[in-house]
Amino acid sequence: MKKVNCDVLVIGGGPAGGVCAVTAKMNYPEKEILVVREFEVQLVPCAIPYIFGATLGCSEKNVASCGMAEEMGISTLLGKIEDINVEKKIAYSNENEITFDKLVFATGSQPFVHTSLQDSLGLEGVFTVPKNKMLIDKAKAYIDNVDNIVVVGTGFIGIEMAMEFAESGKNVTVIGGSKHILKGPFDPEVAIQAEEIILKHGITFIGNDRVTAVIDKNGDNIVNGVQLKSGKVVDTQVVVLATGYKPNSTLAQKVGMKIEHYGGINVNEYMRTENPDIFAVGDCSARRSFISNAPSKVMLASTSAAEGRIAGSSLYGFKYIKGFNGTIAIFSTMVGDMAFASAGITESEAVAANGDIVVGTFTSTNRHPSTIPGAQKQFVKLIAMRHSGQIIGGQVIGGNEAGEMINIIGVMIEANLNIYQVMSMQVATQPMLTAAPTNYPIIMAATMIAHKIDNHFFLFFLFLSQMKSITRVPKMPLSED
Amino acid sequence: MKKVNCDVLVIGGGPAGGVCAVTAKMNYPEKEILVVREFEVQLVPCAIPYIFGATLGCSEKNVASCGMAEEMGISTLLGKIEDINVEKKIAYSNENEITFDKLVFATGSQPFVHTSLQDSLGLEGVFTVPKNKMLIDKAKAYIDNVDNIVVVGTGFIGIEMAMEFAESGKNVTVIGGSKHILKGPFDPEVAIQAEEIILKHGITFIGNDRVTAVIDKNGDNIVNGVQLKSGKVVDTQVVVLATGYKPNSTLAQKVGMKIEHYGGINVNEYMRTENPDIFAVGDCSARRSFISNAPSKVMLASTSAAEGRIAGSSLYGFKYIKGFNGTIAIFSTMVGDMAFASAGITESEAVAANGDIVVGTFTSTNRHPSTIPGAQKQFVKLIAMRHSGQIIGGQVIGGNEAGEMINIIGVMIEANLNIYQVMSMQVATQPMLTAAPTNYPIIMAATMIAHKIDNHFFLFFLFLSQMKSITRVPKMPLSED
Repeated sequence: MKKVNCDVLVIGGGPAGGVCAVTAKMNYPEKEILVVREFEVQLVPCAIPYIFGATLGCSEKNVASCGMAEEMGISTLLGKIEDINVEKKIAYSNENEITFDKLVFATGSQPFVHTSLQDSLGLEGVFTVPKNKMLIDKAKAYIDNVDNIVVVGTGFIGIEMAMEFAESGKNVTVIGGSKHILKGPFDPEVAIQAEEIILKHGITFIGNDRVTAVIDKNGDNIVNGVQLKSGKVVDTQVVVLATGYKPNSTLAQKVGMKIEHYGGINVNEYMRTENPDIFAVGDCSARRSFISNAPSKVMLASTSAAEGRIAGSSLYGFKYIKGFNGTIAIFSTMVGDMAFASAGITESEAVAANGDIVVGTFTSTNRHPSTIPGAQKQFVKLIAMRHSGQIIGGQVIGGNEAGEMINIIGVMIEANLNIYQVMSMQVATQPMLTAAPTNYPIIMAATMIAHKIDNHFFLFFLFLSQMKSITRVPKMPLSED
Repeated sequence: MKKVNCDVLVIGGGPAGGVCAVTAKMNYPEKEILVVREFEVQLVPCAIPYIFGATLGCSEKNVASCGMAEEMGISTLLGKIEDINVEKKIAYSNENEITFDKLVFATGSQPFVHTSLQDSLGLEGVFTVPKNKMLIDKAKAYIDNVDNIVVVGTGFIGIEMAMEFAESGKNVTVIGGSKHILKGPFDPEVAIQAEEIILKHGITFIGNDRVTAVIDKNGDNIVNGVQLKSGKVVDTQVVVLATGYKPNSTLAQKVGMKIEHYGGINVNEYMRTENPDIFAVGDCSARRSFISNAPSKVMLASTSAAEGRIAGSSLYGFKYIKGFNGTIAIFSTMVGDMAFASAGITESEAVAANGDIVVGTFTSTNRHPSTIPGAQKQFVKLIAMRHSGQIIGGQVIGGNEAGEMINIIGVMIEANLNIYQVMSMQVATQPMLTAAPTNYPIIMAATMIAHKIDNHFFLFFLFLSQMKSITRVPKMPLSED
């Protein structure tokens, strides 16, 4: 047993752990920071689907760089922490006994598989999507040699993988429990547009259904189909279970940390656990939604990085006030040549929670005039509180600029902006880069909301003008809404 | 003389006038809104450079749509207002006598030409860049048949036109008074990168110089060169004077409106003039900078649209509180395949005004991992107040997503965010669309600033650690800054 000393021990080298370590070193340059991680090579989590198609083509092109940490004087140890003596502040791996002052769990997440399907993981041809290079390489080698694939799950990872498979010429069937794909982040009218693109790419989508069993007809331990709740059977050579992730909190639980909803480690807004010297960041922590404060399953590397920054500057007391509580669930993806992005809560979610909200939408083009080569449709939907006009959610469809447009809406949500502030907002517009200044869709969607909030006044005027027998009744402004 | 009545008379149908009319109709649907404009066809102002190259290729592809106004019941009259009786509230064109209740000047701007060069406008081959289809068509027809062009002026319009000419295979010389191009919106280290691209496209750039005379060697009224202050002479067949614009405030001045700095019409923050029934919006109004409150020459359609929205909802009393005073000067452009964008004030401007500021920069790639096909460099610079950390400016270089990234920084400026809030900001990141979550450059630039503000503590620790003979001194974190 080798003895190692450090001030701050970070368990896990993913986005949360990496950013936490770097931030800690910046804030406490005199402290010894040690990151313990299991794998020599760390994959970029959200680019894993692109390993399976032509976009990246291999896992070697999807390696996260750790150069910065080393350059800053952060130490790294390969290994797995098996146990921790919380009182004595000692962590144990197979080979090392590590003393620490502050401890950060950044143990990430692992694929979630429904109990009824867990047995199927033993079959040849059944894969999950773990953040593990060796397992991903194994899956890719197998899948490269088959033609028919079933993807279970219609979240971002499932859809991105399905598209990579389809673009590689494979027959792909996507199976989901909801009527439409990408249900969490998008309202139906938005999700449908992504669905149309995957159908055009030849993907078969079976919604409102569920895989009840994975079939091994020949008893040779090789998958050849899936049985659905509806009675349907889909023949296949490969089943990819992209059914979400769950916090990797086994170690934390073992050493007595308080575990919260969905198996996440309990933390306060500074990512501190009930033990003032122990923190948890990233997917292994228990998250809540920024609006409802309800438990949230959202797992995003960008949220993890934000949490890593917060913990990294709060280890020895609090230094910066945390900007925002809860995850605002800010996502983006490409489906074909369209980007789909979402922030905050959807209209469906808000309505289900009986929120008193108003929605505004606007469709424009992402270049102006629309004759600019390569101009694409750009659609923005905003969700605001009826009374304050505060923006609580947004969805964007567009060209690849939509990936940053959602971050504009994200900042608006974080900064508690209301639609009235957005209506007079100054934006940069340029023919080759954005929508027209007169029709900038985020501003126009806000304007639509203001107009709807005013609507009873408008109807009153309509009534008045008809009383006065004024012949031309003003039409409802603007074609889009 | 035909008599016309309306409630709101808007003079000018550009972005400011158009948005003002639409907003007024939305807010006051019972009012009769009349827009008087000079031209049947209105060009999209900022896309005019693209008429001159392959991007658009003709002015017919650069026509602003006015369909929405008509659909909403807004009236339009072609004509030029020659005089106004402000007291009686009557405006006069050649053919019409228009009574109004509220008046909005949206008369725009016209090319600014230095007094010493105004005579040269009579020469064949000398052109300005007016927002007038007939004149633009004439210039294009002439320029299409020449090989050698001098562009005077290194602002956006000058550089965009020079690039269109160069990409059409013409020999282009750009002449400017500053050491670097795009001096207003960009600090030298950013501007130099745009400069390198125009040089790679074969454009000759002469900086720190000035055209003192346009040469007509043969006395045949056709330009054939320019004389520079330095003594240099540049032979050319065409001179394009892209030396800025000035407010079109002749009519306003004639009818007794108060004219402010640079010839702009005096307005308050609701775009109201000293006469409570008269407003001015867009380039014809006198603008100020959001930080310094100093007179500003910035003319942008997006600012004009914001002003149009403010006036359009403040005609009959104020309805929404104006979000922001002064122009934040938020720009973007493409130079080759790189986008350059700027918001707020530059470091150079801030230093010149003796601002107590701190600057942070970060370079990343616009996709992650950087092996994603088409990944480009992405650079962000932020300028913040040392004491509050408030963000007052930013510059971005990147792929076309930079056009929306600058709007993220714009919202941060408008919402008075400080770098500490930005450091824990949640952003959407996706391999095909953005930088990595761990290295998102706006957040990293904010972090760099926080670190610099902390720097004296850091130096103190460095000192302490050396005193204690601790051998490994932590290096300055992160390679980028």
